[in-house]
Amino acid sequence: MGSSRQLRKQVIAFAPATISNLGSGFDVIGLALEKSGDYVVAERTEKRGVQLIGVDGDNGVLPRDARKNVATYVASAILKDLKPRFGVAITVHKRMPVGSGLGSSAASAVAAALAVNALLGNPLSKRELLPYAVEGERFVSDAGHPDNVSPSMFGGVIFIRDVKKLDVIQLPYPKKLVWVVVHPHIEIRTAYARKILPNKVPLAKAVLQWGNLGGLIAGFCLGNIHLLARSIEDVIVEPVRARLIPGFKSVKSAAMEARALACSISGSGPSMFALVTNQADAKRVGRAMQKAFRRAGLNSDLIVSRINREGACLVPCVGK
Amino acid sequence: MGSSRQLRKQVIAFAPATISNLGSGFDVIGLALEKSGDYVVAERTEKRGVQLIGVDGDNGVLPRDARKNVATYVASAILKDLKPRFGVAITVHKRMPVGSGLGSSAASAVAAALAVNALLGNPLSKRELLPYAVEGERFVSDAGHPDNVSPSMFGGVIFIRDVKKLDVIQLPYPKKLVWVVVHPHIEIRTAYARKILPNKVPLAKAVLQWGNLGGLIAGFCLGNIHLLARSIEDVIVEPVRARLIPGFKSVKSAAMEARALACSISGSGPSMFALVTNQADAKRVGRAMQKAFRRAGLNSDLIVSRINREGACLVPCVGK
Repeated sequence: MGSSRQLRKQVIAFAPATISNLGSGFDVIGLALEKSGDYVVAERTEKRGVQLIGVDGDNGVLPRDARKNVATYVASAILKDLKPRFGVAITVHKRMPVGSGLGSSAASAVAAALAVNALLGNPLSKRELLPYAVEGERFVSDAGHPDNVSPSMFGGVIFIRDVKKLDVIQLPYPKKLVWVVVHPHIEIRTAYARKILPNKVPLAKAVLQWGNLGGLIAGFCLGNIHLLARSIEDVIVEPVRARLIPGFKSVKSAAMEARALACSISGSGPSMFALVTNQADAKRVGRAMQKAFRRAGLNSDLIVSRINREGACLVPCVGK
Repeated sequence: MGSSRQLRKQVIAFAPATISNLGSGFDVIGLALEKSGDYVVAERTEKRGVQLIGVDGDNGVLPRDARKNVATYVASAILKDLKPRFGVAITVHKRMPVGSGLGSSAASAVAAALAVNALLGNPLSKRELLPYAVEGERFVSDAGHPDNVSPSMFGGVIFIRDVKKLDVIQLPYPKKLVWVVVHPHIEIRTAYARKILPNKVPLAKAVLQWGNLGGLIAGFCLGNIHLLARSIEDVIVEPVRARLIPGFKSVKSAAMEARALACSISGSGPSMFALVTNQADAKRVGRAMQKAFRRAGLNSDLIVSRINREGACLVPCVGK
């Protein structure tokens, strides 16, 4: 009772959209974007348990049932463990596309975890909140891969050495990087994009892939942008998932012809990202990619962003 | 004619033994050891072409035929391209075990390349000599993987992003690392150790592997020894090749019980390496590993070494 008097009645948390996989880093790497993401409002209620007050910005596609929505699922799991003497009401303001390959459910899960934790007086660290968010992601996507959740939580570039043990490592990165993300207006379900992957891969291709993954990690760590860029080459997952994205080949060609340093699928798609090092290149590359999508019959949104250093934060976010 | 007058008549080159694979880095990573390795003497001869004068230190197992020995094979390839007006006579002094998983043929190939190049007045850089040494390795091992040749040439820790393109990257590394290498007295043929590997690997295992490979690279780059050590975990190659090494399990257990940070197979074996951070630990771990090999009926040699920073060098080597 004593401590609950100091607790806030309402908090708002922001968690950013993320690009995972980055070509060769299937399931083990992701980075946070600057502006797009989810805002989750958590309010203290007398009634125990978790209620979902509302969701907006999702065009009505996300579950309104608190048992099915990822934000309330995560909130419930935290309340169940920490047993506060109050309940929580959740509102989700989605400020990023859903089913886009940009970690929409991860952002909801992370923002909910951070907001509820703050409402409880911040008993848990971000690292301790991570498993709740991963569990939420697993609940909605049947996968529970931490490659969106981790960068959304911590910001920066996160490498996940061990998915099960959640051995997550924050990598340094060159500050010049600018990410051009184009989200075409179709939806790909993560579970399906995972189901079509081969169960087995030729050892020779696996070696190629871990050569590129190693190059990606070394590129980030050593600040070697060209190494990083040429390592964004995915011989296992991209060739399969590309088929789910109309115009994939021409969009990628358009990006490279517009002098992007690299281009691949964000997460399980359909969003595609390209890497550049300044805003002028970003504009040119983004325009070329959107034009190529239009030729394939798809409208799209464009996000141009540097890497978000801070990750999820309570609003107002510091350092923004 | 003018320039040939300034050329030396005889040069000696040293190329170090190497540990490749390092657990999770199958085919893409290797590091150079300090003292063990090959000395190749190259002498100018009036007679064109390449002769093999002799080989010692190999217990008579290496080919004495210049067309079959890796050192003379590499020397011939260089002469063929650079067409000097003289021939070369080669002597190989092997100062490391053969067929041990420590890159014996790679050391011969690299030392020969460096020696012959010096005899020609150093027309080629180490990077330009690399393909000749790789080709030599391919000639004797049916594989031509640059993960021993590259660190033997350049020294340090070398990551090979792309085996075919020879996209090799020198990684930084923590200076404290000490490598304990135990070479049991059996021979494993690289070609056979490669043949028994599976053609296909489950995607889930491949993801585990590239998680560990990424951890290894990040550990080296960030100087994070514990990340590096826990990433020396190989779920694909080690379980298969371990069967070729009598006592593998008990040697590894012995190393870990003696507080090694990690232990795995060097290259295609039978040598096993363990990682420690000081000489006292190295002694204890080396003793434990040798004892475990003895229990499995095998005598062994022990090499304790830091990482060789310089790689192959003309004798007298600078900085040694």
